[in-house]
Parts: sequence; C-alpha cells; structure tokens
Amino acid sequence: MWQQRLRRADLHQKIMPAEQAVQYIKAGMTVGMSGFTRAGDSKAIPVALAAKSATQGPLNLTLYTGASLGNNSDGLMAESGVLARRAPFQVDADMRRSINEGKVLFYDQHLSELAEHLRAEPGYPIDVAVIEAIAITEEGHIVPSTSVGNSATFVSQAKKIIIELNTAMPAGLEGYHDVYLPKTRPGREPIPLTDVSQRLGTQAIAVDPERIVAIVLTDTLDSPSTATPPDAETQAIAKHIVSFLEGEVAAGRLTESLLPLQVGIGSIANAVTQGLVESNFKDLTMYSEVLQDSAFHLLESGQLKFASASSITVTAPMMEHFFANLDHYRDRVVLRPQEISNHPEIVRRLGIIAINAALEFDLYGNVNSTHVSGTKMMNGIGGSGDFARNAHLSIFVTKSLAKGGAISRVVPMVSHVDHCEHDVDILVTDQGLADLRGLAPRERAALIIENCVHPNYRAALADYFERACARGGHTPHLLEEALSWHQRFEDQGDMRQKEVALS
Amino acid sequence: MWQQRLRRADLHQKIMPAEQAVQYIKAGMTVGMSGFTRAGDSKAIPVALAAKSATQGPLNLTLYTGASLGNNSDGLMAESGVLARRAPFQVDADMRRSINEGKVLFYDQHLSELAEHLRAEPGYPIDVAVIEAIAITEEGHIVPSTSVGNSATFVSQAKKIIIELNTAMPAGLEGYHDVYLPKTRPGREPIPLTDVSQRLGTQAIAVDPERIVAIVLTDTLDSPSTATPPDAETQAIAKHIVSFLEGEVAAGRLTESLLPLQVGIGSIANAVTQGLVESNFKDLTMYSEVLQDSAFHLLESGQLKFASASSITVTAPMMEHFFANLDHYRDRVVLRPQEISNHPEIVRRLGIIAINAALEFDLYGNVNSTHVSGTKMMNGIGGSGDFARNAHLSIFVTKSLAKGGAISRVVPMVSHVDHCEHDVDILVTDQGLADLRGLAPRERAALIIENCVHPNYRAALADYFERACARGGHTPHLLEEALSWHQRFEDQGDMRQKEVALS
Repeated sequence: MWQQRLRRADLHQKIMPAEQAVQYIKAGMTVGMSGFTRAGDSKAIPVALAAKSATQGPLNLTLYTGASLGNNSDGLMAESGVLARRAPFQVDADMRRSINEGKVLFYDQHLSELAEHLRAEPGYPIDVAVIEAIAITEEGHIVPSTSVGNSATFVSQAKKIIIELNTAMPAGLEGYHDVYLPKTRPGREPIPLTDVSQRLGTQAIAVDPERIVAIVLTDTLDSPSTATPPDAETQAIAKHIVSFLEGEVAAGRLTESLLPLQVGIGSIANAVTQGLVESNFKDLTMYSEVLQDSAFHLLESGQLKFASASSITVTAPMMEHFFANLDHYRDRVVLRPQEISNHPEIVRRLGIIAINAALEFDLYGNVNSTHVSGTKMMNGIGGSGDFARNAHLSIFVTKSLAKGGAISRVVPMVSHVDHCEHDVDILVTDQGLADLRGLAPRERAALIIENCVHPNYRAALADYFERACARGGHTPHLLEEALSWHQRFEDQGDMRQKEVALS
Repeated sequence: MWQQRLRRADLHQKIMPAEQAVQYIKAGMTVGMSGFTRAGDSKAIPVALAAKSATQGPLNLTLYTGASLGNNSDGLMAESGVLARRAPFQVDADMRRSINEGKVLFYDQHLSELAEHLRAEPGYPIDVAVIEAIAITEEGHIVPSTSVGNSATFVSQAKKIIIELNTAMPAGLEGYHDVYLPKTRPGREPIPLTDVSQRLGTQAIAVDPERIVAIVLTDTLDSPSTATPPDAETQAIAKHIVSFLEGEVAAGRLTESLLPLQVGIGSIANAVTQGLVESNFKDLTMYSEVLQDSAFHLLESGQLKFASASSITVTAPMMEHFFANLDHYRDRVVLRPQEISNHPEIVRRLGIIAINAALEFDLYGNVNSTHVSGTKMMNGIGGSGDFARNAHLSIFVTKSLAKGGAISRVVPMVSHVDHCEHDVDILVTDQGLADLRGLAPRERAALIIENCVHPNYRAALADYFERACARGGHTPHLLEEALSWHQRFEDQGDMRQKEVALS
C-alpha cells in the first residue's frame, strides 16, 4: 500500500525503521516536528527518541512543533530526557510538570511567529525536520496529513528531513492543503488572500529530495479530540454570544453572514460553534486555526459555507465520518500553514470575529490565558494573540467558576496578562456578556461586575472596586489586595474569604 | 494670503471666526480633531469650545484625535467641561488629572485601531470633524499640515466638517502627504505598500465640499517638541542598541541598512535615533509614526535614506530649518494616515525594528507603558502595541532609575501590562541590554538581573527571583510580594526597603 503513496522511486531506498532513522538526531540538536492541536504529528520518531535517550543518555533537544502533539509524545519526550527546550505550545500533563519544575525550558510564543523567527536566521536553523505525510509526490514533495502547522517552514529551514509516511490516513486527503509561505525581507509582497476560500500555493510541500534522509512507515491515527460535549454553562456562553451577534446584525454593524469566524480549541470553543447551529446566520465562513467537531456540524447544517484552518482535530466518530466523506468536504475545507491561518495581515484584512478561551479575566478586561496563579504554565498562548489583536471583534470566554466554586474566573487583577485591555472587546461567562468597546476602565468594571462574575463573588468584587475607586486613578486598584484572591486560593484552596465561604 | 490657499471660490463664504464655527458643535456630540503628537492640531476651535462651555454649560463631548494635542488644548477642554470622553491618546497634565479623577472617561487604544472602529459603524459616527489644513484645493479637498493622523478617517466619517486654514504653516508642505485608507470589509484588498518610500494615495483628503460647514483662519505654529537633549543615561541606552544591532549584522541576521526603523516619541527615543548618527549603518530607512529632531539629523548625516511617518514633531529651531528647506526634504519624507504608518500588515511585511519607551518592565519581560503604580494613567499606549507585536525586533527602553533612585524601572512584577512577554524581544536600560529571544522566563530573569537592573536594586531583585524559584512554576512569583515594591513607593515614597535605602 505504501508503494502507491511513495511516488518517487529513488526514495524507496530511504525507507527504514524509526529506531534507525533517529541516528540522524543527535544530542543538542534542534528538531522541527509536524503536529498542530494533536493532528498530523509524528507518531514513531518520538517513541524511538525516548528509547534512544534511555539507552544513550539525555538528548537535550530543542523541539519546535506547530502546536500540541498527540499520543502523549510530549510527555514521553519530556520524561525521558529527550528535550531540553520546547516551543511554541504544548498541552501534555507530564510536559507541563517538567516545564513548571524548570526541567524543560519552554518558550511560549504566538503561533504565527515561530516561522518568522526561523526565517530570520541565516543558514538552516533546524537540524532535522520530522514530518508526517500521506504521500510523497513524483517530485519528492511532501503531502501533509491532518495538519500543515509549521511543517513547510521546518522543511525549508532543515538540513535533513525525516518523513513519516502514514498509511492509516486516507490518500484522499491529498488536495486539502494549500502551501504558501511569505518570502524573506526586504522586498516581501502582500499575502494575496482576500477571501477565506482562496488558494495561494501548492498542494504539497516543495523540497529538494536530497535532504530527505529517512522515510519511516507508520499506520496510526491521530489522538482523538478531548473536547467534552456542551454542558449547561458552555451552552449559556454560546447563547450570550449568538444573542450579541444578532444585536450587531440588527444595529447594522454586521450582516447575516457575519465576518469570518475564528474559534479556539477546547470544550468551550466547541460549544460556542455548536451554538451557531441553532442560530439564523447564513453563509458563514471560518478562518481559524483548528476545525473541531462543531465546525463539521455547522458545515452539515448548511450555515457554514467554507472553513479554512491549519488542522483538523475531531473525535474518533467524526474522524471516521470525515475520512469516509472526503470528496463531500473537499471544496469546503482548506488546510494552510499556521503562519497563514493565523497571520495578523489576514486577520485584520478579513475582519475576523475571534472567540478564544480565557483562564481568567479581571475587572478591567485584562485576560490571562496561560498561567495558573500567575506562575504555573497551563498550555501556552497559542494563536489567541494572533487573532485577538487584529480581530474585528475580540471575544474571550470562560465559565464564571472553577473547582466547584473555589475559584472565580473573574478576579480583581489577573495574575498574568496575555491579552491586555487594549485587545479585548467582549467578555462572556455563563452569567452574561460585557461589551467593553469604547469604554473607560471604570465603566468596564461596572459592566463586568453586573454581567460576568458569578453571584457568589459579586459582592466581594464590587466591594474591591468601590474601595479602589475611593483611592482614585484611571484603573483603580488596591495593590495590597489585587492578587489576594489568588493568594487565598494557594493558601487555603478557596478564593472566598472564610465568612463568604460559609454563607 | 489665505486667498491663495483657499482655491475653491464657493467656499469663501464659509469663512467665519472660531466663536461662530462652534455653533455646529453641540452638547453630547462626537467630535474628531486633527493632531498627532502635538503636530497639525486644531488651534482655534478648542479655545472657542472652552469659552462656549464656560458660558453655556458643559458640552460633554466625546473627542477623538490622532494622538496628543499641543497648545494645552486637552487640558483647557478637560478643565472647562468641554469633554466627557476622550480617545485614543493624550499627554496633557491637566487632562491626565481629570482622567485619573474619573472626570473624563478615557479610552486608551492602539493608534492604528480607532479608524477601524469608526469605519465599522453604520452612517456617520462623527458629528463634526475639525481639521487643520494648509490649503483647500480647487476640488475642495483638504491638504493637511504637519500631521495626517486620523484626519482622513474623521473627514470620511463626519456629518459636518470645520477646517482651520493655518497660514502660519508654509504652503510648501503640500505634496508631503500620501492619503490612502483601507476599504470596508468584506472584500478589502491588501495594502500595496512594499517599500517605505512608496506612495499609495492622494496628496489631499478627498471630501464632498457640501459637508464643509465652516472655515476658520488661523496663524499659529504647532507647540514645539518637549523632548530634552540626550543625557548620560539615554546616550548609554543608545550605545547598547547600536552595539546590539552591529552584532546582528555580524551574525548575518541583518544587513548594514538594517530594516525599517520605528522609534517612539520622547527624549529617550530621540536620543536612540541620535545615537545612530555615530554608527556605521548605511542607507537606513524609517517607517515610524513621528519624526523628531534626530530623524532630521540622521537625514542630514546621510545615513537615513527615507523617512515615513504620520507627523513631524520637532523643536522650534528644527521646525524653522525644516520649513526653510522643504524642497530639500521633499523626496525623502512622506506623511501618512496613522492607520497606515502603524498598520500591523505593513509592520509585519517590512519587518520593522521597533524601539519604544517603557514606564517599567519586570523580571520576565512584561512591559508597562501607561500606568503609574498600576493605577494612574500617564499618556496612553500610543502606537507601541501596533509595532511591538509584529516587529522583526521589538525593543523597549527605559532608564534603570527614576525619582533620584527612589524608583527602579525594573521590578518583580509590573503593576500593569501593556506589552506581554510574547511581544518583547529586547530590553535596554542605561545599565545594559537583555536579548530575550527564544528564552524561557527563568532565563530571561537571570539576564535582566545581570544586565538591566540598577546595582542599587540588583540584590533585592535577585533575592526575590531566588525565593520565587524555590516555590516553582514556569514563571516563578511570590504573589504576596510581587507588587510590594510599588506598594512601598506609594506608602513611603521609595521602592527600597529601609535598610537598603540607608546603605
């Protein structure tokens, strides 16, 4: 079966087991691996690297990817000494622990930017690129699988390339990809994209086959999505957003087809997209980084006309459905490099409606997307910053409570800022929505207290705000109390003051 | 003399004194005024509005501008009840007090974004635009003076237009402007700029003359720049930057002409640009929002080939020199709308080297540009966010100390975040430079302590970092102490602990 996929005969001799292919990856090297939101990641090389590290000593690699990997590859590599440094994103529990213990040095980066940083380096800053493919063309070019991510950049910037040819992925994925990258500076031209469905590049990643040093055959599917189905709170969030967007249409600021939607990854984002299925919007488009189950529901309901992304991350049943209907979706879905799916130039030009999840937000609209209690890394900023800064509407969503009510997601001051007040238009919790556009900080605080915070924390937040205002300032705060809710949670396991907790 | 400037005869009848022109500005209206970094602002209408407000009661206007106004107009309007709401930037001491007392509601915004927000509104969201001009063409189109700012947007979005025709400004400024604005969405095309010197639009702001309701004659120059000459600390900062850029050239990451420079407004920024005069860089270009004295020095030294900006804000002698040599500079300077001078699409495409001033930064590279002690507004974020997020290099500069040493500009945790860790590549003080690219937070902290903090605060910052690391986390902090330096300054007027202050 792999013979039909490896269409350039002189590359047949490069086929070898993963255990042999990792000879090209030596201690201290910089490696770029395919994979974005658990889709299209390398399946065999991480396992072989862990084995090599276990027998030959720590490899201490610098590892770049598109975004998160599946198959617990990140955890396996972190735990076995494969990695010294990691960028730009991860979601693995074991990797997270290593990062927070300072064992793996993590560089958390806007997902559109890694490609620029690599392109700015002279020579080949990547020693080895490891790229999952569904086929290799007659020219030796690489056809990616369920994500494009940074793969095209890694291939162009790598001294050597290892391809994982995955025969578990359907050959029919060929044609879904549109590979286009900006050129070096100076003299770079505009990215000519003006419509979400437009194709700019090639169906495969061009490469000089001389740099392909190994081809490893695999037949494992992506790890399925871990997004949970909508619940009462996430459905409430979705309803608030639909209702707000209906208001924008009524006010003449949007049409019934809105503007292209970007929706982050995870259960809340999935629920928000799902909520659009019950709306009256028509001819919607999506210009996002990842397509979850809900995007396919919206394509099926007919409301979504076209979806552009960098990866497809769905549940096992949806993956089966998608693979069985590749021709059905072929003219309505395109996968692009993450530099293009997330590019500020395009986000601003198209006027995207960006919906991303917050870990917490504060009285004045600052958003923390990454750090638990200001110190412990959760996943990373991902693409949220690529979208929020330049979006037509920058919407952040979170449940109002966490840990059974011990945590309020709305706090006096966020313990870490990923999205500052200047980049946040709309905040939504299950309690309601605050439209912060054009408002001064004191006005935002009043709206957020009224609409977003959970009733269990409302009085305490209003009290903080009132006492802070008495002290004055454009953005009133009580510095000695600003982070006290987080401190209380760290000390006592509950943000509520004792007397409040008892009530 | 004004007769030659007002080249459309049927507009002569619209000439009237400012006191009469303000009849069109009524209580509660939204007004858009020209003016960017004290350049090209309306000179007569603010005074007339203050008088009207004093006699007829508070006007409570919403006032938009390009950026800051000169002539204490902002203070005068704030103090006299002219303003209820203000965006997107200001630098006036009296206005600042009104904002911090909550009397004027200030919406602090990225300077490239106000135009998008207004364009997204249906109808004419501006009631009256007040625009300084050096001439009105035969078609009735408006030729701006020393800034373009948001003037073209205000004109296109305003029901009525008042023009201040300023005969103190030389007629020879005509031809310096390039007026181009993005179109509405969907269907917007790429901004075709690929070189800093490229012209995209027209020399004047097109307008239907029917909407011009008044023309007021003025003859007052702009308020001169308040930037102070370079001192020992700002010269040290400039040297660190020049030396760093030389290293980038040596490493093959930049050529001797670097990439287009953006330099913020103020004394430090002016000194940094001045420092380039003594460098060996050649054929430099500038794609900035404002040109200060140093930009003209660099044009004169021959190192700067071309400068694009939205305004010219210089000292009185430099203004005199510039006005006397308009033909000499004509093919080396262009003034654009601030949406274009600051546009993320262009910043990313050109790969700008962005140098902006920080109020303070922290151990991990987060930058506060706006809030004193996390609460009191200084000026606003200005264009720094437009540039920093998408720059090839995002550099932030500050003196290591302020208030005679009572304030360290390098703190454990900034009290407000305008530029998060993801948007900051390089930090510079008089003490040295920290290159944070690709580093994890703990590595950044070590470099910042070593290179940037003043020796008087180094031990205390190192002690904080060490104790925070012992507690763990990707970004180690002691929440109960994170803002204690600011608290100490608020309580005791000095960030140093007593025993340290005595040493």
